[in-house]
Amino acid sequence: MDITMYDTLLQLPLFQGLCKNDLTEIVGKVRLHFSKVKAGARIVAQGTPCNRLVFLIKGGLMSEMKDGQGLYSWNEYFGEPFVVEPYSLFGMHTDYAASYVATSDADTFSIDKNYILPELGKYPIFQLNYLNIISNRAQVFRHRLLPGNAHSLEQRVIHFFLCHSERLSGRKVLKIKMEDFAWLLNDTRLSVSKVLNELQGKHLLALRRKEIEIPDMASLMDYRESLQQGAELVQV
Amino acid sequence: MDITMYDTLLQLPLFQGLCKNDLTEIVGKVRLHFSKVKAGARIVAQGTPCNRLVFLIKGGLMSEMKDGQGLYSWNEYFGEPFVVEPYSLFGMHTDYAASYVATSDADTFSIDKNYILPELGKYPIFQLNYLNIISNRAQVFRHRLLPGNAHSLEQRVIHFFLCHSERLSGRKVLKIKMEDFAWLLNDTRLSVSKVLNELQGKHLLALRRKEIEIPDMASLMDYRESLQQGAELVQV
Repeated sequence: MDITMYDTLLQLPLFQGLCKNDLTEIVGKVRLHFSKVKAGARIVAQGTPCNRLVFLIKGGLMSEMKDGQGLYSWNEYFGEPFVVEPYSLFGMHTDYAASYVATSDADTFSIDKNYILPELGKYPIFQLNYLNIISNRAQVFRHRLLPGNAHSLEQRVIHFFLCHSERLSGRKVLKIKMEDFAWLLNDTRLSVSKVLNELQGKHLLALRRKEIEIPDMASLMDYRESLQQGAELVQV
Repeated sequence: MDITMYDTLLQLPLFQGLCKNDLTEIVGKVRLHFSKVKAGARIVAQGTPCNRLVFLIKGGLMSEMKDGQGLYSWNEYFGEPFVVEPYSLFGMHTDYAASYVATSDADTFSIDKNYILPELGKYPIFQLNYLNIISNRAQVFRHRLLPGNAHSLEQRVIHFFLCHSERLSGRKVLKIKMEDFAWLLNDTRLSVSKVLNELQGKHLLALRRKEIEIPDMASLMDYRESLQQGAELVQV
């Protein structure tokens, strides 16, 4: 295994902390399916069984999650290194939660599920990494479920984005009709439109026909933080 | 190890599928701290570090989660066998999410975190059980975060209970002032009170001063299901 491959694997959260010998051993025993993917190609389809781990080691990916009622799609953009839904490999809901499409020519490799525990599970560091990633996800989601300060419509709009975000940074796109968004938020089209335009005025969103772009989720989260601090000051 | 102990361990989801030899080996190597607890004793305190797995093998437990704003507490009731927050042992938020109090004289045992991966992690079945439990939790919570049919106030009230429930069956108690509940639900005290009284009329809730009891969460979930089927019929 060359140095580049070793460094690439070590950047993936699941492999972090393994030593070079472990990785060389793993690469010797576990079949890694390498693949070059053209921009625009779909790597994984929402709703199909997740029975392997797909790793992006070069290029970009977009996830696209369509809701059950056919009202909207939620798109997120990821760069290398990235693992596609490690949380969909185990548990009782093992279908992919979203589709994944290459946004540039990309390099990936995948490992079949039957190798994961019998081979990779032999390394306590790998076990720990996996349990940390999934546990953290469960903890973050639980926290998002508790009623927070999402009282104003503006906060509820931001909370909608938050609840759908895999990562709280980077670009996101919500494709939805304004009337459907208003319906999901339990408010009027006019009020929702007003809030979205105000957020656009603050350069936190860009509104287009049937589409809301969040250029940088981190900025929106900073703004949300400032709102909540304001609310706490008022309560005191 | 006697037969009873073997059967007891096998009932715990983390140990399910292990053979008697594995369990005998585990009990020989891993220190199990057995403990008899009096009714009313607190076993674990919310906000303290989770650095062991506590198993309830006889008796009952109540969990009590207090929200960050001091507005309410959410109590759930569990019988044997039960593991206290296996999802708080790994990840980035490893403080207990709730307190746990014995509701009867109870038998427990605990295993320190440093034994979990080095010793129990040697058994692929244990690894698989652990990953299944945590992954499933993350999957269920993600699903609860998506906007569903929680549009009417009645559905939002039920969704509030759903979001707080560890298990969707059994008895739950929410201790809250009506005006705080209304504030959290973003609605008026009068409307919330009306909805709660209607649910009480259907025997799905019991209202007391500063307290809402759900005698059986499964009945409330069945009722919610019937509401959603009704809503789908209307949409079609």
